Amino acid sequence: MTRLFNDPAEFADEVLEGFVAAHQRWVRRVPGGVVRNTAKTPGQVAVLVGGGSGHYPAFTGLVGQGLAHGAVSGNIFASPSAQQACSVAKAAESGGGVLLLFGNYAGDVLHFGHAAEILNQQGIPTRTFAVTDDVSSAEVDEITKRRGVAGDLTVFKVAAAAAEAGLSLDEVHRVAEHANDRTRSLGVAFSGCTLPGAEAPLFTVPEGKMAVGMGIHGEPGIDEADVPSADGLAELFVRTLLAELPPGITEARGQRAGVILNGLGTVKHEELFVVYRRVAQLLAEAGVEVVDPEVGEFVTSFDLAGASLTLFWLDEELERYWSAPADAPAFRKGSLTPAPPAAEDLADDTVEQSVPEASEQSRAAAATVLAALEATRKVVDGNAEELGRIDAVAGDGDHGIGMQRGAVAAVDAAREAQRLGAGAGTLLALAGDAWADRAGGTSGALWGLLLRAVANTLGDNDEPTGATVSEGVAAGLESVLRVGGAQPGDKTMVDVLAPFAEALATGIGESRGLAEAWGRAAETADVAATATADLVPKIGRARPLAEKSVGTPDAGAVSLALIVGAVHGVLAERKGV
Amino acid sequence: MTRLFNDPAEFADEVLEGFVAAHQRWVRRVPGGVVRNTAKTPGQVAVLVGGGSGHYPAFTGLVGQGLAHGAVSGNIFASPSAQQACSVAKAAESGGGVLLLFGNYAGDVLHFGHAAEILNQQGIPTRTFAVTDDVSSAEVDEITKRRGVAGDLTVFKVAAAAAEAGLSLDEVHRVAEHANDRTRSLGVAFSGCTLPGAEAPLFTVPEGKMAVGMGIHGEPGIDEADVPSADGLAELFVRTLLAELPPGITEARGQRAGVILNGLGTVKHEELFVVYRRVAQLLAEAGVEVVDPEVGEFVTSFDLAGASLTLFWLDEELERYWSAPADAPAFRKGSLTPAPPAAEDLADDTVEQSVPEASEQSRAAAATVLAALEATRKVVDGNAEELGRIDAVAGDGDHGIGMQRGAVAAVDAAREAQRLGAGAGTLLALAGDAWADRAGGTSGALWGLLLRAVANTLGDNDEPTGATVSEGVAAGLESVLRVGGAQPGDKTMVDVLAPFAEALATGIGESRGLAEAWGRAAETADVAATATADLVPKIGRARPLAEKSVGTPDAGAVSLALIVGAVHGVLAERKGV
Repeated sequence: MTRLFNDPAEFADEVLEGFVAAHQRWVRRVPGGVVRNTAKTPGQVAVLVGGGSGHYPAFTGLVGQGLAHGAVSGNIFASPSAQQACSVAKAAESGGGVLLLFGNYAGDVLHFGHAAEILNQQGIPTRTFAVTDDVSSAEVDEITKRRGVAGDLTVFKVAAAAAEAGLSLDEVHRVAEHANDRTRSLGVAFSGCTLPGAEAPLFTVPEGKMAVGMGIHGEPGIDEADVPSADGLAELFVRTLLAELPPGITEARGQRAGVILNGLGTVKHEELFVVYRRVAQLLAEAGVEVVDPEVGEFVTSFDLAGASLTLFWLDEELERYWSAPADAPAFRKGSLTPAPPAAEDLADDTVEQSVPEASEQSRAAAATVLAALEATRKVVDGNAEELGRIDAVAGDGDHGIGMQRGAVAAVDAAREAQRLGAGAGTLLALAGDAWADRAGGTSGALWGLLLRAVANTLGDNDEPTGATVSEGVAAGLESVLRVGGAQPGDKTMVDVLAPFAEALATGIGESRGLAEAWGRAAETADVAATATADLVPKIGRARPLAEKSVGTPDAGAVSLALIVGAVHGVLAERKGV
Repeated sequence: MTRLFNDPAEFADEVLEGFVAAHQRWVRRVPGGVVRNTAKTPGQVAVLVGGGSGHYPAFTGLVGQGLAHGAVSGNIFASPSAQQACSVAKAAESGGGVLLLFGNYAGDVLHFGHAAEILNQQGIPTRTFAVTDDVSSAEVDEITKRRGVAGDLTVFKVAAAAAEAGLSLDEVHRVAEHANDRTRSLGVAFSGCTLPGAEAPLFTVPEGKMAVGMGIHGEPGIDEADVPSADGLAELFVRTLLAELPPGITEARGQRAGVILNGLGTVKHEELFVVYRRVAQLLAEAGVEVVDPEVGEFVTSFDLAGASLTLFWLDEELERYWSAPADAPAFRKGSLTPAPPAAEDLADDTVEQSVPEASEQSRAAAATVLAALEATRKVVDGNAEELGRIDAVAGDGDHGIGMQRGAVAAVDAAREAQRLGAGAGTLLALAGDAWADRAGGTSGALWGLLLRAVANTLGDNDEPTGATVSEGVAAGLESVLRVGGAQPGDKTMVDVLAPFAEALATGIGESRGLAEAWGRAAETADVAATATADLVPKIGRARPLAEKSVGTPDAGAVSLALIVGAVHGVLAERKGV
């Protein structure tokens, strides 16, 4: 269990602070994560890695010469926000563009994808790639749905070495994809992990059993078996991975492979070596030549007791990059000429923020938007506990807290924007970014998208009309559908957002005023939220507990309905925007 | 707990095999441990480190350029034998002499000390040094009694860097001593460790408590306290270590120090970083400049949950060596030019053994010695379980098993010696070496010394007489007293060996035959063994349980009495040697 912490809410931040204090030769802290503390190579592609905390050395421990240029570091087991990724990317990039690498998890895909959009808009060519090495997380015909586990390392290492070699962004992206195509992992877990301050493990495995294929956040595995001998585990690992050779390799014999035997938390080095002894024997028997094996901790899951094996099928190009020197806090290989330290004057973010010019009418409308955000915060505050309770039925119970964090940050940002004289569009855009940044998780990202979509139609010049707002909500729905991946009926916020957007558009089409149309749409939203109790979840965290969650509405749907109701109060009082 | 193993008896060997398989660029296996797999520098002092297994990366993970030249690796938590140390030393040395470094534990002091004697006799200049950094294990006025914990690393690192810099054996020894003088550590444990195959932890700490100063094999600490916050632990560590500045340093402010925050097993990197954050703050507040901090696992104790802090007070010389580059499997620093791989033809130990010429009479006496060893093995076998039971009262219950391992190995070696035509002296010397090598632990080493002492007086030429044997036993007693550190009355085998030696000398002095004198002395031994039940242990593992052990005789005393009784049977039948 995790014993050493102060305030659990500060844990991830304090980890980062201590990590940086101990590794100043390698890294420096920037908002959102860390970047190398060595001089940049102008024109080099910046390879950034990232994800939630609790997986050390992933991700911050993998920043340094020959490996990542920076790491974006989220809260414990929670993906970082797009804003964090943008911040780290701007600190790390040196004119060659940015490649964002992460494991294939919904939250990470969402936030890093959003970050790439923003960075590209801002003139920094950016691409993303999600690692999918875990063979247990989907069948081979759905390979793109697989999760990323310790194979993160092979993809990160090889892409970064390609960047160091001077390849272009497109080429580095191609190398990452190629490495991922040739990386396969399988993991097992013997016990769950306990997060700082938690009373009980996040998940459990029966004593004497192991969960075959359990994910690094406790995602369900494919089998439960008795804990085998060390040799037995080696045999399971090697047999499973040799049974799925990557495309283009017809037999293992004669191949060369990188090997990672990864401890997931509390399995000790001694145990890993005993397992590796047999892994090496089995690979030799199969005619596979092992190149630069790694035995230790690379992608962990706090104090989870478990281990994974990764095979990385090399060709000439991949082997060159796999064997290239690297010097990161937690991963070092070969010998390289140390780069000089970074200049001290790394641009910081203390420049006074400014907002675009805005019309009188738009500034007036901004006051209404701020009032709506304040009403939102109030209704979220009043219902946070209930939202948490609903979410706990099939999720991790943090929906209420996340919404609170988001709403508070949005109101703060909106007030600051108002102080600077922002129009309605900019005010709402900044509020949405702050929401996504602070709320974390998938719902935080989706709320950020939704608010930004409405903000885009509001703009900073015209006086917003009912039609403008209705268009914005429709655009928000489209973003949420596209990025979130949910369809109506999947038991998500979409089940409220879609009928609400339609009802609002209908009302405006019937020439009703915004306040009236919004009020009718809010009633529709209310009914739709209640109706989600009858649905079965099809995506996201709730899916594994699908049966259990029937009878309880979706927390995201309920919070959306509550918020549109609260906003109606503001619009009714002010008779529109 | 330790879950991944095969046959627990093979665990330490299989760890070593897997470790070497994963790190062929750095190390190669030799009998007794590992040596660097890179080319030697002729004339360089070879710095060897060692101790029991279960402390990875200590000791094998610390072998490589800029760090140790080799590691001697014992069984789990058991010191390696002098024979192992000699084997590794011979493989590692390159003409500059050998420095053997280890933590200050009785078994290690004994075996490495013995190895140094042998190596020096064989013309390889060898010195030893025991690390004593653990401030909790003895008061400052008994500083040489302190145990070695994570401060092993500072001493190993600095001595090895001095060797790489070309210093002489005396100088490297001086640097090691100087580093040890300026190294201080304090550790805490939250839970015990479970060895492979064991049903229960080796020791326990009450839930929610921590043992302050508990040793890395569960040695008792100085205090039990509630588990503090991460900041609270940092404060305890720093406050305690700043309260004991090394000689010559009057105030901390303005000093430069190396820092090691060491995880002892299952405390995770994330937790260590949170603690380190506060350690760094506190040291900065105290005006201490931190140089090259290390946060991770350096000296562990299997899956013990615990951590330790080490401060290493630098001067110009120590800082130069502390910051010098190193490249070992588990410790890397800076950038160095890789040495070429070692030549393939490392001398191996497969040369047929030969024995010195022996007289007819001595060869005849050798048959009696062999018979005595066979009788010893038989009586040990028959009483192993009971010896274990007695030992478990105040020790770890392995006395019976250790004696069995030793006696079996001694008989095997003696038979082989007889086959080669050895005289009585050589046969018993080889048997004694084999005993010490296989039995392990302190009692194994003492039995090896005892048999070697008798062997030395027997020689390979003269026909042994009662006086020869009596002199040998007296010399053996002297060795055991000198090396083992026990006095009569301390409740050890000495309480039997001393009266036995005296009674034997008296009997021979009275012109009795060996068989008769031995028989009377054996009766004395029997009485003395029983009488140890009334004694209170003063040294060794039994000391902390002193009260509990009163009423039970000492296991080492009982086994010695049983053996002299069994040997009497052989002498009586053969009427002397």
